[in-house]
Amino acid sequence: MTVPVPDGVHPAWLPPEAFRAIGSRRTLVRGDGPLVDTVRDEVTLACVRYGGRVRHPLPGGRDGPGPPPDLVLALRSAGPLPAVAETVLAGFGAIGDEGFVVARHDGVTVVLADEPAGLLYGLFHVVRLGERAFGAAVPAEHHRPATRRRMLDHWDNVDVHPVMGQVERGYAGGSLFWRDGVLREDLSRVRAYGRLLAACGVNAVAVNNVNVHATEASLLTDRLGDVAAIAAELRPYGIRVHLSVRFSSPVVLGGPPTADPLDEDVRKWWAAVTERVYARIPDFGGYVVKADSEGQPGPFTYGRSHADGANALADALEPFGGVVHWRAFVYDHRQDWRDRATDRARAAHDHFVPLDGLFRGNVILQVKHGPMDFQVREPVSPVVAAMPATRLAVELQVTQEYTGQQRHVCYLAPMWSDVLGFRPWGPAGPAVARLAAGAAGDGGGLVAVSNAGDDPYWTGHPLAQANLYAFGRLAWAPGADPATILDEWIDLTFAPSAPGGLERLRPTLHAIMDDSWRTYERYTAPLGVGFMVRPGHHYGPDVDGYEYTPWGTYHFADRDGVGVDRTRATGTGFTGQYPPPWSEVYERLERCPDELLLFFHHVPYGHVLRNGSTVIQHIYDTHFAGAEQVAEARSLWERLAGTGSVDPALHARVKALIDEQLRCAEEWRDQINAYFFRKSGVPDAHGRRIP
Amino acid sequence: MTVPVPDGVHPAWLPPEAFRAIGSRRTLVRGDGPLVDTVRDEVTLACVRYGGRVRHPLPGGRDGPGPPPDLVLALRSAGPLPAVAETVLAGFGAIGDEGFVVARHDGVTVVLADEPAGLLYGLFHVVRLGERAFGAAVPAEHHRPATRRRMLDHWDNVDVHPVMGQVERGYAGGSLFWRDGVLREDLSRVRAYGRLLAACGVNAVAVNNVNVHATEASLLTDRLGDVAAIAAELRPYGIRVHLSVRFSSPVVLGGPPTADPLDEDVRKWWAAVTERVYARIPDFGGYVVKADSEGQPGPFTYGRSHADGANALADALEPFGGVVHWRAFVYDHRQDWRDRATDRARAAHDHFVPLDGLFRGNVILQVKHGPMDFQVREPVSPVVAAMPATRLAVELQVTQEYTGQQRHVCYLAPMWSDVLGFRPWGPAGPAVARLAAGAAGDGGGLVAVSNAGDDPYWTGHPLAQANLYAFGRLAWAPGADPATILDEWIDLTFAPSAPGGLERLRPTLHAIMDDSWRTYERYTAPLGVGFMVRPGHHYGPDVDGYEYTPWGTYHFADRDGVGVDRTRATGTGFTGQYPPPWSEVYERLERCPDELLLFFHHVPYGHVLRNGSTVIQHIYDTHFAGAEQVAEARSLWERLAGTGSVDPALHARVKALIDEQLRCAEEWRDQINAYFFRKSGVPDAHGRRIP
Repeated sequence: MTVPVPDGVHPAWLPPEAFRAIGSRRTLVRGDGPLVDTVRDEVTLACVRYGGRVRHPLPGGRDGPGPPPDLVLALRSAGPLPAVAETVLAGFGAIGDEGFVVARHDGVTVVLADEPAGLLYGLFHVVRLGERAFGAAVPAEHHRPATRRRMLDHWDNVDVHPVMGQVERGYAGGSLFWRDGVLREDLSRVRAYGRLLAACGVNAVAVNNVNVHATEASLLTDRLGDVAAIAAELRPYGIRVHLSVRFSSPVVLGGPPTADPLDEDVRKWWAAVTERVYARIPDFGGYVVKADSEGQPGPFTYGRSHADGANALADALEPFGGVVHWRAFVYDHRQDWRDRATDRARAAHDHFVPLDGLFRGNVILQVKHGPMDFQVREPVSPVVAAMPATRLAVELQVTQEYTGQQRHVCYLAPMWSDVLGFRPWGPAGPAVARLAAGAAGDGGGLVAVSNAGDDPYWTGHPLAQANLYAFGRLAWAPGADPATILDEWIDLTFAPSAPGGLERLRPTLHAIMDDSWRTYERYTAPLGVGFMVRPGHHYGPDVDGYEYTPWGTYHFADRDGVGVDRTRATGTGFTGQYPPPWSEVYERLERCPDELLLFFHHVPYGHVLRNGSTVIQHIYDTHFAGAEQVAEARSLWERLAGTGSVDPALHARVKALIDEQLRCAEEWRDQINAYFFRKSGVPDAHGRRIP
Repeated sequence: MTVPVPDGVHPAWLPPEAFRAIGSRRTLVRGDGPLVDTVRDEVTLACVRYGGRVRHPLPGGRDGPGPPPDLVLALRSAGPLPAVAETVLAGFGAIGDEGFVVARHDGVTVVLADEPAGLLYGLFHVVRLGERAFGAAVPAEHHRPATRRRMLDHWDNVDVHPVMGQVERGYAGGSLFWRDGVLREDLSRVRAYGRLLAACGVNAVAVNNVNVHATEASLLTDRLGDVAAIAAELRPYGIRVHLSVRFSSPVVLGGPPTADPLDEDVRKWWAAVTERVYARIPDFGGYVVKADSEGQPGPFTYGRSHADGANALADALEPFGGVVHWRAFVYDHRQDWRDRATDRARAAHDHFVPLDGLFRGNVILQVKHGPMDFQVREPVSPVVAAMPATRLAVELQVTQEYTGQQRHVCYLAPMWSDVLGFRPWGPAGPAVARLAAGAAGDGGGLVAVSNAGDDPYWTGHPLAQANLYAFGRLAWAPGADPATILDEWIDLTFAPSAPGGLERLRPTLHAIMDDSWRTYERYTAPLGVGFMVRPGHHYGPDVDGYEYTPWGTYHFADRDGVGVDRTRATGTGFTGQYPPPWSEVYERLERCPDELLLFFHHVPYGHVLRNGSTVIQHIYDTHFAGAEQVAEARSLWERLAGTGSVDPALHARVKALIDEQLRCAEEWRDQINAYFFRKSGVPDAHGRRIP
């Protein structure tokens, strides 16, 4: 058994101390199979450290001698179970593939599962509870994930890309998998990563960038060994690997000279290649495809639809139980900025809704949560409500491409919670979380772009670990409260600090993090208009950076007003892609939520928001306030120095990053304010300095 | 003897046919030494091709038998000269190191020189004249360069720079010298390049980028062989090599741990290193230094002045006759855009004028022609008139960093001619050309950044060859007329085309090129305000691209007006760096030339220019006109297709580039117009479409 976290790497939310409650007790593990072995190994490791005991069953199924266990972790099938377990189980039907039942009864904590994966998740549930797991009696609770599909996409390149680097949109060092074109020799961090993911509920990882360059294309064939090696590290934690493939793989990998999805040779090629993948990786998850998007090849080349394209790959995967994640991020990235009729926000709906019902059952259409591209504020994508006959996955971005690039504190769970709780048909209809999960948990689920890399803190900014953790937890339980998730993360990550340290740290972290997404929103692009970032790297402000470009991302600010008219009445008609009530709410200026006003409407600077402020004064006020909040966060963090409530190295790392965040927030404040002051000529009502 | 232009490379202004007039005649070459050998070789090569004869002197100095020569090329010292030569010489004193006397007398064309270099330039003079050299009698003319220093700087890197590539700001393929970190094995193009440069009058080349990265630093020591090899190829054409060195060379090349210019060990290190350079390259020209600029190290690190820094290197070079080109391009590139008092335009004057008189005699202060950075329109740098006790070189940019990057036709000679003819003290004072040349031709001279690379046409855009040619010609004779230079270039380059082709081509080229600089100005940043280019690569429009950056390059456009107030009365005071009358002309809004208005003044959009138009209407008008002129140029060029007046491959290359120029010009037009319309709200008086 290896130590789960390599030397010099921060343990994130699984420090040894998180296992103290278990490790100092007597535990009985019952069941067989690799994942049960993982559970047993985890408990054993904890006991070695903290003096507890693992009870092993005797031959014949009886438990060994000794005092009764404090904790039972058992598969239902591993009977006969101890009496207390049978009592807990009484009356329970199926627990489900990944579910578990947990109870505290007669002084014993019992975790029961139908399948080994459930037992693993049950173990981590007990880890989260810590000492609370061993207190008063608790009646049986049945936990199971909202959806079976809880996946992280890695935008990792094998070769260092000349522009995008080792990890496209990566802000946490290099790839956990590859370095300079070669699979890492030491994959112990991959295993540790899998363990962290399992502990928050993730069960699938796509290992490479959706922009599949030449070297990466060969992961499907010649370099399949790389994928198999990664899969071997993640398998003990119940995580299946998926692979991003190039739609033109047949052509670039020596197959037929076409990638036409209706060509018989192409279909045979995919079938043969896929068979070889499964021969090597029997639990392989499937393919991820970005097709006809931002320069990537796709079925349009052959006059075929995206359903044709996705189905060809799906047919190859179907015999093995694999799925295709087909990304709906398709739009014209060579748009003429002079053309105000074309609206990038419309693109996914325009392209995919007509295809509803045409996709195979093992195709998952992967839809970004908003219609644009992971901006700090977007409406929910209307596609989510428009394809009832398609399995949809909602894609989030844990990596902070547009939300501070892991130099800024920006706890994203509140945004994701809003997205998942959005009800496209109004209060009486289902929420996005339900649409993604599927009625029986078999929907497309949730996918997110990972923020992890080979940085010692995994995520560059130590506090960005909370985003990775929260994604997993929300994928498991979309209704979970972001502040509660943050508490879980704080308890696990920082519990071992100095006596009383947690009491000091917890309120500081809540003060810094709870509202940090809205703080980031305040000092960046206002009122849902989006972008205004430096082209290319997307860090820091450049109000007109994308304004006259082909990327379809505009704000149309002039001396009179700002915003994008996406109404049906006078604009691009995007509002019509929503069902009522939102088609009306967004259409009507007086009903449109303030925070999305400029996403849907072009208004004069003097327009009065529902909050009573004018647009221009709101811009000034939020930008002064946002930068001020960062300054406050900075001073809160500084006050922790030397208190022993947080590791000095971690404190120093965060300190340096908050300094940069403040510099950048002030830059945003001043550029946005100066830009709009120069355009509008309206002075700040409070007479503050606008440069 | 090798064929001067390698296969597959365009001969530029020295096609074989340019030597037809000489090559079909009888020529006597008199004199000794390597450069005379070059002259003899050139004539011999021409005669081999065109059936003429080279007469060689007999032992004892008499000329061989046969009919009298049509052309005599002779050193004065190679006497006794033919009688006709003695006649021509009668009454002439010193011809000068690089000068020559040319006459047509008694049916013989005579070129006489004191030194071999003069004879070489005289040969190329005859090449330019072609058949005209052998017509009616012409009295003796004395030609000599205005300045001894006529230099091209190459911004070539040895290693491919991750951002800047093989040639920083290079738009003509790779380096002629290096490829991927290694000196090219075949340097025949370097020799051919030297021949082209000699033919237009250039006599010095700095071989590497002024931003000296790690590998390039070692050219001074470990990789001196690279420099020697290049020098060997250029030497036969009278061209000396110079080397860009890193000010911190002692530190980075294993010398003393400091680069303090007053440190005795540092001075010894430079002396020793320089001695080794001259041991290897006896005619080495000297060092080029960019210090304390844009991140390059410099004397400020040690609390020393730029005079201290330059003099340390000058002292090392002095025993060998070498010079230091010390660049005056020093400014704060980490400026706060919020700070309106700091003015990058002031920087060179502020830094260097106090040092006037403190530089050694072999230091040449290399001053960019304008105070900013090679914009399409700038005033002449006030430094040129402010350092009477310093040798100044004026630096031009032949590579079209800000003038279309050799995708746009932009014949720069008219701009350079304006610069060189500018009289800082008004009509009665000397012009810039005279200040750079020095009273006796021993000033700092002219330097330009080369636009040549390994592109088959040398300069990417075939018509950009004219800029390289014109630079050399203006360096030799700053008063030359740009249109006349263009004719020379046309005659040399295109003379061999189909019968009558030149008559068709010449007016087309004049129509496309003569005014192309002003055309480029029309569709780009207006009225001298500069920049508005995409940051980083500097191609194409981005009005606010540099507006909120640390680079000190702003336009300050708001809803009311635009421009930079550089007056003494209310602005940065930059106008005070000029002597009268310009200090007053630029200061006073009503006297300031229109084309520089926004460089010196911030004015309302409704301000009426001296040309009668408002600023905003002028912006619209020039931008529509500029793009329209490119469209006309394009159709003129297209009409040449199939006429035989130009090589089809060259025609196709130019055609593709003009298409791109038109696309880009329309993009400039629309972005600039849209930007200012959105800001000003003033509609176009002629109702044209502004997107």
